[in-house]
Amino acid sequence: MPATAAWGATAPDSALEPLTIDRRDLRDEDVAITIAYCGVCHSDLHVARDDWGRSTYPFVPGHEITGTVSAVGTGVTRFKPGDRVAIGTVVDSCRRCDACHDGEENYCREGMTGTYNAKDRIDGSTTYGGYSAGIVVAEPYVLKLPDSLDMAAAAPLLCAGITTYSPLRNWNVGPGSKVGVIGLGGLGHMGVKFAKALGAEVTMITTSTAKGADAARLGADHVLLSSDKAAMKAASRSFDFLLDTIPVQHDVTPYLLLLDRKGTLCLVGMIDTMAPFHSGLLLGGQKAVAGSGVGGIAQTQEMLNFCAEHGVLPEVEMIRMDQINHAFERMEKADVKYRFVIDMASL
Amino acid sequence: MPATAAWGATAPDSALEPLTIDRRDLRDEDVAITIAYCGVCHSDLHVARDDWGRSTYPFVPGHEITGTVSAVGTGVTRFKPGDRVAIGTVVDSCRRCDACHDGEENYCREGMTGTYNAKDRIDGSTTYGGYSAGIVVAEPYVLKLPDSLDMAAAAPLLCAGITTYSPLRNWNVGPGSKVGVIGLGGLGHMGVKFAKALGAEVTMITTSTAKGADAARLGADHVLLSSDKAAMKAASRSFDFLLDTIPVQHDVTPYLLLLDRKGTLCLVGMIDTMAPFHSGLLLGGQKAVAGSGVGGIAQTQEMLNFCAEHGVLPEVEMIRMDQINHAFERMEKADVKYRFVIDMASL
Repeated sequence: MPATAAWGATAPDSALEPLTIDRRDLRDEDVAITIAYCGVCHSDLHVARDDWGRSTYPFVPGHEITGTVSAVGTGVTRFKPGDRVAIGTVVDSCRRCDACHDGEENYCREGMTGTYNAKDRIDGSTTYGGYSAGIVVAEPYVLKLPDSLDMAAAAPLLCAGITTYSPLRNWNVGPGSKVGVIGLGGLGHMGVKFAKALGAEVTMITTSTAKGADAARLGADHVLLSSDKAAMKAASRSFDFLLDTIPVQHDVTPYLLLLDRKGTLCLVGMIDTMAPFHSGLLLGGQKAVAGSGVGGIAQTQEMLNFCAEHGVLPEVEMIRMDQINHAFERMEKADVKYRFVIDMASL
Repeated sequence: MPATAAWGATAPDSALEPLTIDRRDLRDEDVAITIAYCGVCHSDLHVARDDWGRSTYPFVPGHEITGTVSAVGTGVTRFKPGDRVAIGTVVDSCRRCDACHDGEENYCREGMTGTYNAKDRIDGSTTYGGYSAGIVVAEPYVLKLPDSLDMAAAAPLLCAGITTYSPLRNWNVGPGSKVGVIGLGGLGHMGVKFAKALGAEVTMITTSTAKGADAARLGADHVLLSSDKAAMKAASRSFDFLLDTIPVQHDVTPYLLLLDRKGTLCLVGMIDTMAPFHSGLLLGGQKAVAGSGVGGIAQTQEMLNFCAEHGVLPEVEMIRMDQINHAFERMEKADVKYRFVIDMASL
């Protein structure tokens, strides 16, 4: 399917608009996918606007993709046309380094090939994301979408889901863990759901009373208003793990005070310079500030299976493709509960 | 032994001078110790000068103490006069909280009672440190000094030793670990020795070629000059654990670039505001910046036993008590290899 319908940006200051892109002819290991749904991630907006300074145009966003296999290359063994599949943020990697061997292709020593705005490792062409009718991806980077998962609601699992699931698993969150999720948005609402499904005691830490009420509906055991100084003081040194989903620069000091001995605060949303904090907050109890970025293919598949088993799904608002520019505006104001998903039938 | 000879400071700007202090009469659980040697820790100087704003005067420094039991209270069961013992930075704690129950009295929820400049939990008197002929400490906070450990050289184990041993153990450093020790001083030289004895591959990371040569003598497998940009770049993403012993404010960015996937940089020397660094350095590989402060009684005893078993001892320069003010001056210039120890027979 060389000529493929898509929406994308042609310059940092342009709105998204309809485009026709080329998808490559199938290589032996390739899987061609008809995209059914694509989630809208804040990174889509950052790269469209060249906020991180590495964007190339035309740019087609989208790395939370669900759909159906339409064709497979001659060497493909795990997929056949009609299979339900998903694509996340990674579509290739060196496949040789220790990270790739460990199934952490997202941390490939040579750098992973992103689903969009990256260079294909074989022909050097630019990768285009899921705001598109279809996509072609090498088999090792194609995920199976369990039958019981709603194809529309599942889309945000491919980035927002794995970004929160991976650190919770890496830091061994489970029964007995006291987890705080800081910030209730696309990432935060998945953090609450996953931490709860993993068996932890979960507190939503938010600035907003309204979000607190919503967090309880999502499964949080407690709500802690970060603006309530007495409540924050009472909660000092009471959390084993804090999942910090705040997407903008912020001071971690008030949250580090909440960490218990040997606790970790893990940043998943903020890609920015750390506001200064005092090292004594870490020394007094072997505490850590960590970070985590998405997850590898094996763990993403594990997460999809976990979601099927535990009935975990994102809460989404469906939009048509031609609503994307308005959706970007609303996303910037955090006016979405909790993730937009584009119905690709509207393309 | 109520009236006891000591050296201390009477004001933030005064030199240390001879004093007579009161040690309490033995309570049932108390052990009276004749101090043989006391290490000189940088904290001694900080508190003498009230750098941290909480000093009371007269102030008697010293929390790296070795000596011999001179008398015991009626309830003491593990010690008898003549036993070789040691005292570190902690002489009491609440004994009820989870940290105390876990043997991490240094992280007691109510705050540990420091060996100096703290308030005794029973009579409210000020605690005085080991620059003194003797000390009285409750039995649970008295450590056994293995027979094979030289009593003079062992003294710095009680703070510099446990401060480096504890994080290496907490982050599971052992055979196969690639460890970098940043900064070669009282803490750093123990970090090299412990990491090596634990079976790790150890790199000394220093600004100084001369220190690099010394690090090899101490057991480091490699030396990395942090001023050598090409070498630093070649070493990027190659360490599992970095023990950062730099005692002053510094930018951790060049060191975070050295961390491999899931690696941790642990601060043990710097008690100050963190210089800003970019969160992307943590997100790209589930990395962490952590901190650690001394260790609990159980782990300190484990460390002393480990040192006896593996022949690990600090490298010390012996001084007389009346040389302490000059020693402080030299310590400020890092002019000591690698720890001063006061021979208390010179008091």
